[in-house]
Order: sequence, then C-alpha cells, then structure tokens
Amino acid sequence: MSSAVRKLAVELGARSYPIRIGAGLLSDPTNWRDTLSGKQVLVVSDEHVAPLYLDRVVTGLHDAALSTLILPAGEAHKTLDSTTRIFAALAELNASRDATIIALGGGVIGDLAGFAAACWMRGIAFVQMPTTLLAMVDSSVGGKTGVDLPQGKNLVGAFHQPRAVIADTDTLSSLPDRELRAGFAEVIKYGALGDAQFFAWLETHADALLARDPHALADCIAHCCAQKAGIVARDETERGERALLNFGHSFGHALETVCGYGSLLHGEAVAIGMCRAARLSARLGMAADADSQRLRDLLTRFGLPTAIPAGTDADALLAAMRLDKKNASGRLRLILWRGVGRAEIAEGVDEGTIRELLRESG
Amino acid sequence: MSSAVRKLAVELGARSYPIRIGAGLLSDPTNWRDTLSGKQVLVVSDEHVAPLYLDRVVTGLHDAALSTLILPAGEAHKTLDSTTRIFAALAELNASRDATIIALGGGVIGDLAGFAAACWMRGIAFVQMPTTLLAMVDSSVGGKTGVDLPQGKNLVGAFHQPRAVIADTDTLSSLPDRELRAGFAEVIKYGALGDAQFFAWLETHADALLARDPHALADCIAHCCAQKAGIVARDETERGERALLNFGHSFGHALETVCGYGSLLHGEAVAIGMCRAARLSARLGMAADADSQRLRDLLTRFGLPTAIPAGTDADALLAAMRLDKKNASGRLRLILWRGVGRAEIAEGVDEGTIRELLRESG
Repeated sequence: MSSAVRKLAVELGARSYPIRIGAGLLSDPTNWRDTLSGKQVLVVSDEHVAPLYLDRVVTGLHDAALSTLILPAGEAHKTLDSTTRIFAALAELNASRDATIIALGGGVIGDLAGFAAACWMRGIAFVQMPTTLLAMVDSSVGGKTGVDLPQGKNLVGAFHQPRAVIADTDTLSSLPDRELRAGFAEVIKYGALGDAQFFAWLETHADALLARDPHALADCIAHCCAQKAGIVARDETERGERALLNFGHSFGHALETVCGYGSLLHGEAVAIGMCRAARLSARLGMAADADSQRLRDLLTRFGLPTAIPAGTDADALLAAMRLDKKNASGRLRLILWRGVGRAEIAEGVDEGTIRELLRESG
Repeated sequence: MSSAVRKLAVELGARSYPIRIGAGLLSDPTNWRDTLSGKQVLVVSDEHVAPLYLDRVVTGLHDAALSTLILPAGEAHKTLDSTTRIFAALAELNASRDATIIALGGGVIGDLAGFAAACWMRGIAFVQMPTTLLAMVDSSVGGKTGVDLPQGKNLVGAFHQPRAVIADTDTLSSLPDRELRAGFAEVIKYGALGDAQFFAWLETHADALLARDPHALADCIAHCCAQKAGIVARDETERGERALLNFGHSFGHALETVCGYGSLLHGEAVAIGMCRAARLSARLGMAADADSQRLRDLLTRFGLPTAIPAGTDADALLAAMRLDKKNASGRLRLILWRGVGRAEIAEGVDEGTIRELLRESG
C-alpha cells in the first residue's frame, strides 16, 4: 500500500469500513483490492470520468469476472432509469450475492451505484471511489444512497454502507474549477455546522486550497471525512445529530428541484441554501448578522453563489421544501444555526417568514 | 378488537410486530388502526381486490390524509414501473417520513408496496393486509420485498419489515379456487421442509381445507405464520436457516421466469419445483423415493401441478437458476431434503444432473 495514505474508519460494528485518502491510490490495487468480496465486479462510472480513470481500476481487476457500465454524467441522470441500467448490467454479469459494485465518479455515480447495490438481491457490497471533491468529503461516506424524482431530490433511496471509500486525490487534478468550488461548499458546511476552528482554518487556507495545493487538499479532505465518520458512527440513520449535515440542504434541494437538476450544481445550491439558513436564523433572533456575513464572505471567496437566481418562483421553492425528507407529518423541519459552528434543528418555523425569505433577492 | 383474533408476533427486538388472524378484521379498525404511524396513509391495492375490500379499509381511515392507488393485478405487474407509480402517488400525497403504506392484496401487492416503503425517503412504515392464502401464510410475513426483472424473479428488493400483518380470513371467501390451491403449495412447503407432523395434519385435513372450512383454514394459517415467524426471528436476512423456506423455489422461480410471469402462478411453480427438488434428492441418494411420492400425492390432492409444462426449454431453466439469489460466485446452491420435514442446503450439485432432471417430463 502507498506510504502516504491517510487512513480513517467509519465505526459501525461489523459494518465498519476504511476510508483511504492519498495520491495515486487507484493505480496501485494493493490500496483497495482487499476491500472487494467475491469474484464478480461491476464498475459503474460516467462518460467524463471513465476516459480518465477507468483503465487504472480495470487493470487491478484482471483476475475478476468484470463488467463496466458508463452512464451519462450529471445530476439530471440520477434517476430510476439509470438504476434500471445498472440492474441490467448486473443481470448480464449473472451477479450473485457476493458480487461487488465499484462506484468510480462523483456523488451522482456513488448515489446511483450505491442504491443499485442496496437493491440487487436485497443488498450486495459496493466500494466508493470518489473522483470529485464533493464526493470525497461528503457523499461517498455514510451510506446514504438514492435517486431523484421529478418531484424532489433523493426521494427514493436506501441506507447502505460501502465496504470502503478510496479517495485518490490525483483525480482532483482533472476536476473542472466549477466542480471544485462546488465541493468547497460542503467543506465549508462542516465548519459552519459544528467546527468553528475548521471554519477559521478555511478562512486562512482558502488561497492554497483554490490553488489545489495537494497537502492542503489532503488535510482538508481528511478533516471533513473524520467529522462525517464520527457523526455517522453516532447516528447512522439520522435520528438526531446527523440531520445537522443537512445545513443548507432544505433550501438547496428545493433550488435544485425548481431550477432543474443540473442547472445549479449541488454544492452551489447548498451554498445559496446555507446563506438563507443563516439569514433566517438572524431574522428569528437566533444568531448575529455578523455570522451570516462571515459565511457569505467565505463562500464568495471560494467563488460560490450566495443569492437565489433571479426569477425563481418562491412558491414553487416552498412547495418543494414541503417534500423534504426531514419534515414530519407535513411540518417543515429546518437546520438553522446560532452562529458559526453551532447548527441546530428547528421545527415549526412560520411558513410566511420562509416565503418572504425565498422572495428576497441578494 | 374482535374476540376471535389469533395473535402472533415476529420477535425482532425494536422492530417486532404483530400478526393478527381472524374473520372480519378489516371491517373493524380497532383491529389494525393502532399499527399505523403518522397521519398520511397510502393504500395500495389491485383491480381485483380493491372493488371487494378497499372500502372497508378506507372507512377506518376517515381522519387520515389518505390516498389510494389501484394497480393492475398479477405477477406480470410486479415491476419497477409499478414501483414508480407508487412513488408518484407518495409524492402527490407529499408523504413524509412518518407516512404509512398499507398493502391490501396478495403477494404481488405486498412485495411492491413493501419495496416502495423501503425506498421512499430511505424507509417508511408499511402494514400488510394480505387477501390471499399465499400472502397470509408466506409473503406478508418476514420483510422480504421486491420486484421482478425480465431476467429473474425478485432480483431487486429490500429487507424491510412491516409494522403489522392483518390477515382477515373473510377475504379468502372471494379467492378463486386456483389461487387458493396455489396458496396451499406454500402451506405444504412448511410441512415438507421442517415439520413432518404438520405434513401429516395436512394429509388428514385436505378435504376440510379445500372446502374452505373456516376453522381449519385459520388453524392452518396460524400454524404457518408461527413457523415462519420463528425462522425469521432467528435468521432475518437469510444467512442460514431462512434459506430452507426456498424449498422448491430455485426450480420454481426459474419456471416462472422462463414460462413468462403469470402463466404459472407462483404457488404452482413452487409445487412443481418441490417435486423436482425431492426427485433430485432421491437421485443423489439423500432421500427415499417414497418421500417424493408422498409429496407428489399431497400436492396432487390439493389440485396442484407436479410436472414441468411440456415444451419448456431445459437450458433456459438452468440459465435462470444461475441467477438465483441463493447462489454464491456463480455456483448453484439448492434446497434439497432428506425426506418429509428434513430440508437442507446443498452446494455444488453437478449441473449435468440438474439439466437432465429439467429435461424429464412427468
């Protein structure tokens, strides 16, 4: 195994699994081959990632009964139809209960392949090989899988933990700038929701991170993964604390749904959503305006949007928020904060106040 | 609650749930209303069952946010497309995490509605209200949910336990004779795989059961549910003992796949499959021919088929068996027996022997 690999673990008893972070992990199968079960492997990737990195993975699987599936890229394809294509590929492979799916790509591929793994024969193994910053710091860890419906994001899915997360930081070199920035929205979220010290570190290291300094990036990814692994270990199925990871997501998911999947990247929608959550918190007297401003400044520094796109229908946003998974019995449940590093769950916020907030530009 | 209700439980710790069996349960909501969570309810049924029994259930839900969905009947509709229709109905209802799905119908409706419940927002509650003998004695208990693919039965699904099983034996009065007989295949299976005494009881009570004697039927259903509840409690996700419940199913599922979903009823395919499993066991020297004959006699007495339909392609059957969920790494795993009441898992049976068996008529 490569020497500079950072190793973490998600502690879930018999279902615990490793997170490995480092440069060049994919090219050396000793970094991940031990995490596969059985002889049958399906690698699922997308049309952007496969030409760059699929070969590295396939080379390490020369002795497996191997199949590959390359899906179209982007959130617009995180659908039941794509899942059906994965099922067909598994049937073609005669995949049995001890087969493994490898998800090689960003959050969309990880969510799709993970959901297919959860459902195939009522659950087979899968390994996350995230190739975007967002997938490395957030979606590949924790076992949330799923697909979008026209009515809302991630409405259909399963909790299904991967057998391993293998984050090869070399793959970030090919990531488009916009995708990298979108990933930083989820990074900033960790600071915003529960780690003021990390938030300050991001303020200090923004330039290095945006310049893709390998050391700063690896530190950043490892820090986020450690925070997420801890939360998931304490609250796997989101009965409590894990909901805080949705800071910015009630607004963000609604924006993605209403603006059309793919017009805003997920991270961009979350950036805007976090700003709304902070502003609402200030308006409700829970937090100071200065904290909202500080969050907005950091997001802006990372090149992220902070305002709802002009012309977005506020009523449609509110309707989409009503379908958010955090709600109970039709009542809105939001993640707000008391300032940097102190998010909390809020119930029963007046819908009129929220509608007003959704109508505001800027 | 009605006085003559037989009550059992599936013991799964915090996820334990009741099975209630009796005449008229649906008409009196005190028999089941306590098992629903939240205010939102979607009742899923099919076009045969809904005209007969949907009203009884809806009447008991006058104070709920209620929606109903009536799907076409039959195994040919146990598809991802039907699941998508359930998701659309849930979105229309704005169903949140504490919504409940009620599955009112046979095994197809239970499997579909249960799978949709497993996936909606990564898992919501559902209640089984089986209206066929097969669903009452088998599919409604134990949390196996799923859909068929063109390539094979139940290839996609989830383990997701219901909150309750409410078996109103009055609904059996409208069950077509052929469906009733198909249900007895699963009943006979319980005797065949692990309960020689029950097998003998069935030999003695066949006439009463076929005449739909209410008392004999209720005894029979309660006995099967108790046996299944015990097995599920000991082995929820089929790491061992639970696989024995698939006696006759490797052959049976292959028959359903190859003959086309719906041409053979599931129970009919299982009846034929059990006979093949018994014959194979005899041929391998595991069991006596007399046991095969005794099984065949009982199935025949219940009006069930015991021979593979003429013209069925043996190679296609074998190919379908290779996709069976019990297999590991491409090796066939079958449930065979050592005689009435003594099923066991068999691995590595020679494929040539199986192909020969599939080619035999009679």
